[in-house]
Amino acid sequence: MNKISAVIIGASGYTGAELLRLLLVHPHVEIKALVADSNAGKEITDIYPHFAVTKLPKLLKLDEVDFKGIDVAFCCLPHATSQKIIKSLPKTVKVIDLAADFRIQDIALYEKWYGEHFAKDIQPEAVYGLTEIHREKIKKARIVACPGCYPTSILLPLLPLVAANAIDKDEIIADSKSGVTGAGRSLKQHLLFTEANEGVSAYSVTGHRHSAEVVEQLGTNFTFVPHLIPMNRGIISTIYVKLKTDLATARKALEDKYKNEPFVKVLANGAIPATHSVRGTNYCLINIFEGQKPGNATIVSVIDNLNKGSSGQAVQNMNIMFNLPETTGLLETAIFP
Amino acid sequence: MNKISAVIIGASGYTGAELLRLLLVHPHVEIKALVADSNAGKEITDIYPHFAVTKLPKLLKLDEVDFKGIDVAFCCLPHATSQKIIKSLPKTVKVIDLAADFRIQDIALYEKWYGEHFAKDIQPEAVYGLTEIHREKIKKARIVACPGCYPTSILLPLLPLVAANAIDKDEIIADSKSGVTGAGRSLKQHLLFTEANEGVSAYSVTGHRHSAEVVEQLGTNFTFVPHLIPMNRGIISTIYVKLKTDLATARKALEDKYKNEPFVKVLANGAIPATHSVRGTNYCLINIFEGQKPGNATIVSVIDNLNKGSSGQAVQNMNIMFNLPETTGLLETAIFP
Amino acid sequence: MNKISAVIIGASGYTGAELLRLLLVHPHVEIKALVADSNAGKEITDIYPHFAVTKLPKLLKLDEVDFKGIDVAFCCLPHATSQKIIKSLPKTVKVIDLAADFRIQDIALYEKWYGEHFAKDIQPEAVYGLTEIHREKIKKARIVACPGCYPTSILLPLLPLVAANAIDKDEIIADSKSGVTGAGRSLKQHLLFTEANEGVSAYSVTGHRHSAEVVEQLGTNFTFVPHLIPMNRGIISTIYVKLKTDLATARKALEDKYKNEPFVKVLANGAIPATHSVRGTNYCLINIFEGQKPGNATIVSVIDNLNKGSSGQAVQNMNIMFNLPETTGLLETAIFP
Amino acid sequence: MNKISAVIIGASGYTGAELLRLLLVHPHVEIKALVADSNAGKEITDIYPHFAVTKLPKLLKLDEVDFKGIDVAFCCLPHATSQKIIKSLPKTVKVIDLAADFRIQDIALYEKWYGEHFAKDIQPEAVYGLTEIHREKIKKARIVACPGCYPTSILLPLLPLVAANAIDKDEIIADSKSGVTGAGRSLKQHLLFTEANEGVSAYSVTGHRHSAEVVEQLGTNFTFVPHLIPMNRGIISTIYVKLKTDLATARKALEDKYKNEPFVKVLANGAIPATHSVRGTNYCLINIFEGQKPGNATIVSVIDNLNKGSSGQAVQNMNIMFNLPETTGLLETAIFP
Repeated sequence: MNKISAVIIGASGYTGAELLRLLLVHPHVEIKALVADSNAGKEITDIYPHFAVTKLPKLLKLDEVDFKGIDVAFCCLPHATSQKIIKSLPKTVKVIDLAADFRIQDIALYEKWYGEHFAKDIQPEAVYGLTEIHREKIKKARIVACPGCYPTSILLPLLPLVAANAIDKDEIIADSKSGVTGAGRSLKQHLLFTEANEGVSAYSVTGHRHSAEVVEQLGTNFTFVPHLIPMNRGIISTIYVKLKTDLATARKALEDKYKNEPFVKVLANGAIPATHSVRGTNYCLINIFEGQKPGNATIVSVIDNLNKGSSGQAVQNMNIMFNLPETTGLLETAIFP
Repeated sequence: MNKISAVIIGASGYTGAELLRLLLVHPHVEIKALVADSNAGKEITDIYPHFAVTKLPKLLKLDEVDFKGIDVAFCCLPHATSQKIIKSLPKTVKVIDLAADFRIQDIALYEKWYGEHFAKDIQPEAVYGLTEIHREKIKKARIVACPGCYPTSILLPLLPLVAANAIDKDEIIADSKSGVTGAGRSLKQHLLFTEANEGVSAYSVTGHRHSAEVVEQLGTNFTFVPHLIPMNRGIISTIYVKLKTDLATARKALEDKYKNEPFVKVLANGAIPATHSVRGTNYCLINIFEGQKPGNATIVSVIDNLNKGSSGQAVQNMNIMFNLPETTGLLETAIFP
Repeated sequence: MNKISAVIIGASGYTGAELLRLLLVHPHVEIKALVADSNAGKEITDIYPHFAVTKLPKLLKLDEVDFKGIDVAFCCLPHATSQKIIKSLPKTVKVIDLAADFRIQDIALYEKWYGEHFAKDIQPEAVYGLTEIHREKIKKARIVACPGCYPTSILLPLLPLVAANAIDKDEIIADSKSGVTGAGRSLKQHLLFTEANEGVSAYSVTGHRHSAEVVEQLGTNFTFVPHLIPMNRGIISTIYVKLKTDLATARKALEDKYKNEPFVKVLANGAIPATHSVRGTNYCLINIFEGQKPGNATIVSVIDNLNKGSSGQAVQNMNIMFNLPETTGLLETAIFP
Repeated sequence: MNKISAVIIGASGYTGAELLRLLLVHPHVEIKALVADSNAGKEITDIYPHFAVTKLPKLLKLDEVDFKGIDVAFCCLPHATSQKIIKSLPKTVKVIDLAADFRIQDIALYEKWYGEHFAKDIQPEAVYGLTEIHREKIKKARIVACPGCYPTSILLPLLPLVAANAIDKDEIIADSKSGVTGAGRSLKQHLLFTEANEGVSAYSVTGHRHSAEVVEQLGTNFTFVPHLIPMNRGIISTIYVKLKTDLATARKALEDKYKNEPFVKVLANGAIPATHSVRGTNYCLINIFEGQKPGNATIVSVIDNLNKGSSGQAVQNMNIMFNLPETTGLLETAIFP
């Protein structure tokens, strides 16, 4: 078959670099251009020495890219920037966006958390790229908005339970813990090694913008507190729910939903998912446990925030959009230890 | 004044070592003996090289210790062992126990989580050593059972709120995250650097024995899930509650309780406590935040699990038991970074 | 082509697990059996949960394996155990050993560091598996003894310089720093997270047994001090040498040797290799720098100790032994961050 | 006695914060002002939340400080800035400088590494503050220039050996490894958690400016390569030397020099110093080992870079300059684990 011609816009951030790592072993993709405006003219190895062993095109400015013949553009940009650039791309190019800009159909909800939206007109075209939930729509979409990392870890376990009416959707508390790559490669004091190492902290305690897309998908409000953990990759979400059925029924709803999914696994009864098991991979591991009070349950889910939480899910969506087997290029085992 | 003659029983564990570190700068304590049965005959520097710069007595077996003239024994032993040894000590010696054995007055509750209790007869003598709550009883106690690390971080914020009837005590969820020292110096595979590093995991998801003492102190059941964080020291507890008053009233209950406390601080409105701020110290920092759903609130508290969560609180209790200013030897600033 | 039928003996250690990770994406290998005597009967996921997403055979005892039709056995065992087991294998099976047992042709030198050798008779069959140096011999070998991790990082830069007579081989000092996986999955106190984290230490200061194979390959004695670094993977060796030529000539000797090698790269002048750039890969990055005193040079080399330093090089050697393209299954980009 | 009135100039960097931590438990010091020009007007807790439990003066601009009655100013500033500010201080104030500006008597040598020197006229007043070597001069000095962290770890073991003519001072190689706090609190990409974590790298391979002061003190050139280690605090220097005496004589030179020193300890024969043993303290631990080639020796020394390598040694020097017992305020035990 012909290779898919791909452009990565925003190659200098961590999600761009992870995407590049994944696409380099993808048998049906050819990387045609790497865009990184502020680093344009440099080699990617100047900013990511671990690509030194690979032959890759120089970093370009966006306007240096010839989009003729390009099949897909991955946008790995900060939110707000993303929408303006996507709006400017030729309509012949499929777009997989890793930012927040097109994740939320309700523009008012978007603007409450992120500020003004500058591409409202194309928002309706966008599909929320939580693969296992919206696969059929993703197949036909031109613009896929990949979910946030926290939302991926929260929605994958919750949506089947809500769909099965197995939990009270108005009593959900998600306590999430993320590695530091979740904050990107930005020069902020609290992200220095010396500041993040050997400590753990909560942030956005009164509300985090990733809530917005979860709220839209769940169709209700919930409680979400994220924490910063001194490790590079990984998210664990511990989710406290109230059951409307017995635990076995709830568990079955999860198992039924995911039994044939290649990347989402409900673990055996009692096994606790750990971030170690998904490092560097596109897997999401889930389990549900008896709560410590009658009628309650506790859910634990884990993903790699840069992979299933971002660039891996992006590749999974690309596979779907281009009629490739969904697991193509994504079947790595976790790196452990 | 005469110095307090102290014995540390169980000097080879982490709480024993932290206690020793603290007592070495305490101006009114003389360390008379260090007991570590399995390492008896060795120097403490053989098992903890960081004491190489200090002159200390050799490690002894318990039966080599002459308790005549000893004022206080700190027991830094695993639970179950602790009760047998404390039972055997002369009644003239005050006992500060860092294990779980004497924390719970309800023997049935104790035995549900820890197995048979072998010193039921002296349990009534024991006072639960959560200093800021039980100070008056600690003053007169012969046996003080210092709280567990998780319970300290959970009870200090919750008890004043329960006392003020500001929260619904039947709807409490505590999601706690601890550094690896909480598991002690035991040779277990999941505690290896290579296994704990670069990952986070939940454990005891369906129930952890530290719950027992919290349940007894709160007078009700609650939900508690602990997590293992790749750092040495520190606990952060994120606690989800439902308010029975408005937030300001709840906050005031906390502030009133702790306004004159040297070691428990309610931070300024909006400031999020981080474990960094208490590393190596006896402080507990607390804050309460508006919840993300009406009528809810989120509490964050942090301690150093080896210090306020264990050996620091033990010294604080000793100061009280011997009529010393409560802060003696404990006013270090956190080591950061 | 027919797949290579492979057995991993010693699947429960870190090198076994890394090898399994690599072979799972190798297109021409079928894993026929996983041997782990002390864990026989278990699933591999019982000891390595990150394999939960993969279908793999149960762990066996060695004597449960039918070696008929097996093409290659990888031995990932502690030294001494390795030699006895390899001796017992059918001669029709090619053997790739990751232990020290067959690395050293000079039995006396071996025994000085490792104790009695119990398979002296088959030692002459064994080829030292430093791929880029002994490729031709590896092609024809039945037993390949993969080099130690430290030696790989030291010999790859030094051997071409010695061959070109560019350095004084009697004045070599190698100061190496390794991640904790280098010590394996053994329950030792200094390998606990709490003991290895937040500190660095030298060990084997007066001599480390990995020296032996380096001495044999170099044909001379040298100085080698290893250090334990609080990270999982990676070795950096900083090597101090005295030049017998000018620096440019020395650099050229390295560049000439490795210019067509897929896995060993001499970086551009001035670029300093970092372990980050090789995490999870089979690459070795090298550079040579002007020394700080006239006539001196400093060499820096990095590898992933579990990969090029062990299981990756093993797969590279297997590819050679079975006439596959040498890079098959090994072209992953480093996982960063 | 009257308390020493102290000003900290540059309180917002790590050495300023560590100094503040130490002075807060010093019984004879009163902190009169904290200067941090770019943060002037803020509370120190705004930039270092771990000081939240302490009452401290607001941060000031330098020109807001009234130096009348001030006994000592600690300068914790970047080099170059330091010299200009020290030049401007009243001569009645003793100055303890933690920057490089006044460490080197040979102005040409200074300028080779650091650029133009703007306070040449007061350089002759300055004493190099390596306490155990220059104690007598420090006693009488107005300006003490505290050594760099790397130099402290290198010079303390080397100077007595050079003085005893026990080693060939023209054949010294120091391979040092430092925690990330050594780079200060600056926003640089390679200092981000995600970039420094899980990797080790060499830097300044062809020459580091800390060499300059070592060269002046040793009276000869040497080789020095520093490495960045993923931990907060600590330096280990592994130093390769050639003996001019036997090892026992060399060891005795070290032991004799330091036998009565409170903060520098030569460990028992065979014991390897580890950074863990000095974390948070003013100690330097040293040992010397038989080399791996005849006539060689290997030295290992460890310090806490922020403490003995900077702020601790500054306090030690202050004690000397004000005729206090040298150990005042500095006898903490290392924080471990």
